[in-house]
This record gives sequence, structure tokens and C-alpha cells, in this order.
Amino acid sequence: MDELFSRRTRAVKRSEIRELLKLAERPEVISFAGGFPDPATFPHRELAAVAQKVLGEDYDRSLQYGATEGDRLFREAVCEWLGRQGLALSREEVTVTSGSQQAIDLICKVFLDPGDVVFCDLPTYLAAIQSFTAFEVEKVGIPQREDGMDLEILEEKIEEVSRQGKRAKLIYLVPDFHNPTGITMSLVKRRRVLKIAERHNLVIIEDNPYGQVRFEGEPLPMLKSLDRTGRVVLLLTFSKILCPGLRLAVIVASPRITEQIVKLKQPADLCSSSFTQRLAYEFMTRYDFAAHIDEIRALYREKRDTMLEALEAYMPKHPGIHWTKPQGGLFVWLTLPEFVDTREMFPRAVERNVAYVVGSAFFVDGSGQNTMRLAFCEPTPELIREGIRRLAEVIEAELSVASAAVASK
Amino acid sequence: MDELFSRRTRAVKRSEIRELLKLAERPEVISFAGGFPDPATFPHRELAAVAQKVLGEDYDRSLQYGATEGDRLFREAVCEWLGRQGLALSREEVTVTSGSQQAIDLICKVFLDPGDVVFCDLPTYLAAIQSFTAFEVEKVGIPQREDGMDLEILEEKIEEVSRQGKRAKLIYLVPDFHNPTGITMSLVKRRRVLKIAERHNLVIIEDNPYGQVRFEGEPLPMLKSLDRTGRVVLLLTFSKILCPGLRLAVIVASPRITEQIVKLKQPADLCSSSFTQRLAYEFMTRYDFAAHIDEIRALYREKRDTMLEALEAYMPKHPGIHWTKPQGGLFVWLTLPEFVDTREMFPRAVERNVAYVVGSAFFVDGSGQNTMRLAFCEPTPELIREGIRRLAEVIEAELSVASAAVASK
Repeated sequence: MDELFSRRTRAVKRSEIRELLKLAERPEVISFAGGFPDPATFPHRELAAVAQKVLGEDYDRSLQYGATEGDRLFREAVCEWLGRQGLALSREEVTVTSGSQQAIDLICKVFLDPGDVVFCDLPTYLAAIQSFTAFEVEKVGIPQREDGMDLEILEEKIEEVSRQGKRAKLIYLVPDFHNPTGITMSLVKRRRVLKIAERHNLVIIEDNPYGQVRFEGEPLPMLKSLDRTGRVVLLLTFSKILCPGLRLAVIVASPRITEQIVKLKQPADLCSSSFTQRLAYEFMTRYDFAAHIDEIRALYREKRDTMLEALEAYMPKHPGIHWTKPQGGLFVWLTLPEFVDTREMFPRAVERNVAYVVGSAFFVDGSGQNTMRLAFCEPTPELIREGIRRLAEVIEAELSVASAAVASK
Repeated sequence: MDELFSRRTRAVKRSEIRELLKLAERPEVISFAGGFPDPATFPHRELAAVAQKVLGEDYDRSLQYGATEGDRLFREAVCEWLGRQGLALSREEVTVTSGSQQAIDLICKVFLDPGDVVFCDLPTYLAAIQSFTAFEVEKVGIPQREDGMDLEILEEKIEEVSRQGKRAKLIYLVPDFHNPTGITMSLVKRRRVLKIAERHNLVIIEDNPYGQVRFEGEPLPMLKSLDRTGRVVLLLTFSKILCPGLRLAVIVASPRITEQIVKLKQPADLCSSSFTQRLAYEFMTRYDFAAHIDEIRALYREKRDTMLEALEAYMPKHPGIHWTKPQGGLFVWLTLPEFVDTREMFPRAVERNVAYVVGSAFFVDGSGQNTMRLAFCEPTPELIREGIRRLAEVIEAELSVASAAVASK
């Protein structure tokens, strides 16, 4: 019966990375692999209180089917919350989705036919790559610099694609505290990438799961707030600032695009959970959401500091070893000398009871073999320190083997 | 920017039916349109109790991301529950989805390329039609008889499609208490459609949202339990036996197909809500789920009885007027004389404060203009009686106008 499977089923491979990570599931392994938020950030007491209220007073609506575009009250609360951050919106621009991953899937549905072209960073978010693969499009990777995507290369590639007669559609970006690199796109580049998108009539997906989790410095304006032509589609998830288990995110887009999203969400899942939307709404309106997010920031700031200090303290001094210093988010990106293959090194790291995500998984062109993603969100500061110490030893050993190999030639 | 929209976005139209139904949103309208379960069936006190427990003792897991295939405990509880109903399963055959609509979407993803052919009843479930449209496939409607799909026509059509060089993939069925007709497929036809699917190497989607809601008689074996070649994909939702607001359903399929479903659910939404899965698990294991379903059956049985009695009492006696007598589920299907157009009649019904779903919406070939779906799940028995009385008057008026028109010729 395999012959009945669709082309997309054959195109999407089981994630090799996931298989690798199964090796690291022993409790003695300190894992920097998972991007799961720290459960200490989940406001479970508050959610228990609002669950009682909702299931007592309003169960008939909150356990029922809801509107495809999302609960009116929740969408209004989101508008108000974003309004306080300088993004003036109306409810007609907001669609509730079951996490940002569903948002990506829906946006792909709205815009992409097989063979269309999507531009993304080298490296970029792994599950976005998987979505693009499932939609059978061509993924064009653009190198990422310290201040975000290399926009000169982006323009060259857009022109190349257009010369080839292909249909360029989307630029996928994670401008704040990028996954996997932690890099933030500069304001200059934010303005410029918008101009490029306007010039070539492209849509920008601004995936922003970490923007609220800033440790220092002033927030940069979201692309969406600089957008004057309705071509930015902004994704905001509640997974990192509330919890992932409620599966809540919103898409902010022009009314015209929102209309298409809602039209395609209908056959995709009818609606997201009325119940979890109602819990989030009650939490946002009855408690101090900003103060809650401040606590999350403080918790991850300490972990980020610990990881950066440990990297500084333990990593071998080698000109080929460097890492990003993110101002927010959950990730540090580590680059090793070109001769080190982090995929090949992985079993040895796991043997030493430390794990990471192999960097090449994030590159649509298969490069990045000497890189890795280190998430500091899950382990405690103590374990972060110990984990980095172990990782440094593993890397040290790689360097020795490599220099011995060179010496013996 | 409309030129950037995908083909599927252009193919899926905003539902005209939904627009029509907005007319009926006044509180004085008795609506037989909505297929929403009666909130009296929602076990809100029990859910409040288990929510307290889960958010107290196990918030770190239940508010976190979960496995893409679904929570292990919940999947095991589902296997046990289905096992007690004679369907022996292992966890590897069960995927949790965000409602059955997501299940349909995922199955389309696994099997369908544009231009493939899907067979379904005339009429069939509206949102399944929308899904098939979104996947740009050819929908071939097969007339439904009193005992289910006309399988002779099905075979003819399969052969015709194959002669035309098209790729037939799926047969979509709702064998128990069909939506919209309330019809149940006979055991003979269940066996026969399986044979046909085997002979032509097709997959059967057995969408079974209402099978648990049987009012009388013995349950017929599910197609899945008769399936020896792993080609039936069974969809079971918790929307009608627990509540829709948790967005929980399961797909039961062979391990090989399940593997593909999980692979494509990953980029679709990562996972369904760990929290709502955990609530359902606790409800199923701490309370008497079978007794709860018995209460639901009793509630809808009374409503079904009321609707059938009212139809008998109020409907004009006319050889062209007849309706189904469902043994379960939520719907009665009413057929009027061929000269009556229920779409055209709709505003007049709403004027008389009664609403239904226009039957033609459920026909992939646009036929059925003289039919309508009457859902008895939402209104109280009193309102059902009054609503059918009003509807009968509206129909009576149509018949008089028609016979006056004939007389004046």
C-alpha cells in the first residue's frame, strides 16, 4: 500500500536528529538539546484557579466548539496586550492557532504550491524546514550574519530564482533571538528586508516565539510594526511565556490574508481549543501578565549568563571555536573548527553524558557540519556549568585527535 | 498580493452555508442547523476535579510539549476502552489529533496528491468535502441508499476512474449514524466495501463520530474490526462523548500508516495539547466512562424521539416528503418534493424563526436541492416540537404556492 502514499509523504523523512536524540534520553545525560521551556515558568496555580472558574461558570461555552478564527475575548486580549507594546491591531487581523507550528502549516497552505520558492536563514528553525519540505517547495538558504540574514545574497538569490522562472513567495525569518543561533536582526536590516519584500512582492513570515524573552537592551520594533503594505505575517506563541501544553499561538496578518488563513483553518481542524483559549484569556486579564514574563526573563537570564560564563571558562582556546551571545531567547550557537563534525562527535558526547543538537540539521543546504545548538532553558544553572565542562572535554579530545592526525602525516 | 495565494487557497470558497446560517443567529430562531453537542452532556464538574489534580501534581508534564503521536497514558486508555468494545489494538496503531477534522487533514496529507480521486457518499460530511477540495482532488459522489453507499455504483465508478488513468486513493465513509443522513451501513455492505477496497487497493476512511451514541439495537462491527489488510483508517472523536472544546480525537490505523501520519503531524502542529489529553485520560480512568456515555445516549434518544414524533405529527402528508429514522447520532435527514428548493426556502424559514442546513451543501455534485439536515442535539424537546411545527408550516406554504402555480397554468 506504500504506493498510495502522496509525494509529500515520500518527501518528508523521519527526523534523523530525533533518532540521534533518543540516545541521549538517559537521566544521567545533561541535555542542551531540548528547546522545551522550564516548567518552573508555568503558572500552574493561577491556571488551576482560572480552570475552576471557567469550568464552573462558563463550561457550556468553553467546552464547546468555538469560532475558527479563535475566541473573540482572547483575540481582543491579545490585541490589547500587543497594543501596549506599540503594535496597534484590530481583532480582524488575529487568528488563533494550535501553536506556531500550525500557524506555519496554515501559512504554507495559503501561499505555497509545489515548486514555489521560500527563502530562509542558514541555519533556520528545523520544524519550519520540515513544513516547507511537506509543501514540496524549494528552500533557498541565505547565510546569516551577526546582525541577521545577508540581504545582499538574498537579493541576488531572489533575482536568480526569478530569472529561472520560478515563483518566489516567502521569506521566513526569526528576527528576535533566532532559533537556532540566538542572533537578533538589526533595525537597519529589518527596514531593508521589508523594502526587498516590497520590491519583489514577497510575503515575510516573522516567527517571533522569543521576542518577549529579552534579557537586556531595548526591544527592536517587530517587522510587523514597520510593515506598511500588509506583507508581514507575524507569529506569536504562548508556549514560552505561558506554557506549550495549551497549544496556543496567534497569527497577526492583514485582514485579506487573515480571511484566507481562516478559510483554510476550517478544514484543517475546525477551531483551536475553546477551553485553553479561555484559560489563557482569564490568565492574561486576571493576573499581571507583564510581571509573569519578567519572572521568566530573570530565570532564563541567569541560565544564559551561566552558560556564557561556563563556555568562557571551559572551552578550549582555539581560533576556530566561537559562540553567540544572545540577548534573549533560549539558545546559544557554538561553532567549532571546520575539521570537527558535530554529528560524528555526537555519540562520544553522549558517552560523556552531555547532549546538543547537531547543527547541520538546521541548514537547508546540508552545511554547518561543525556547529551545534545549545539550549540553556531546561537544565539548572549547576547542570549547565557541569554540562559545558563535559562538552569542553569532548571537544578538547576532538582537537587532540585532529592535531595528532596532522602530526602523523 | 492575491497573486501570491496558492491554488488551494483559490479553490476553497468561503462557505455559503455559513453565511446563510448567520441569518439564523437571532435568539428567537429555533435552529436545527448546528451539530454542536448539548452542553448538558459535558462532565464539567468531573473535569474541574481532574484539572485541579493535574495542575497540582503533574503540571510540569501536562503543560509541556508532548509526543507528536500523543500522550502514552491517554493512548493506552483509548486502546483499553476500544478493547472492551471488541477492537483489540496496540498503542502503535493510535495517533492523537486535535479533533477528527485534523485527522482528516492528516490523512489527506498522507495519501493525496492533486488530481487523485476520493469516493464519498451523496450526501456526505461537509467539512470532509472542504478538506478534499483543499487538497485539490477529484471528489466522486456515490448515491447513498437506506443501508449505506450504493456499492455497485461505487465499483462502476472506480473502474471508470481507473480507465481514465486517474489515481483512485480513498473511500470516505461515515458508517454509523451518518452525517448528514443518520443512515447506518449494513453489515453486508461493510464486508463488501472492504472487499472492493482490497480488490482495487484503496484506503477506507471510517469516520465514526457518532457510533457510541446508539439509541437502540446492537452495534454493528466497525469496518476497522473487519479489516484484515490494514487499509481502514478509523477516526474516533471525543467531541460527542466528552466535549468538543478539548479538541481530542484519535486515528486508528496500521503501524505503517500511523508512522506516516505522525511524520506529517510533526510539521503540522508538533503535538496536540498535553493538558487536554491528560484531562481526558484522568476522566476516562477515574470515572465511569461507559455510564457517562449511557447518559448521553438517553438524552439524545429523547430528543430524537421528540423530533420523529413531531415530524409525524406536523409534516404535510405528501408522497414526496419523507425522512430518515436514525438509530443513533444527532441528525435526521428530510427530503421534500423535488420542486421544493430548500436553499431558496431558507430565508422564509428563518423569517418564521426556524433554521436547518440546506441539503445541497452536503452533495459533491451539487444535487440534493430538495433536502435538508435537521440536527436534534441542541434544542430542548419542547423547542424541537415547536421548531418542527414551524418548519412544517413553512413547507406547507411552499406546497400551496407550488400547487397554486400548477393550477394557474
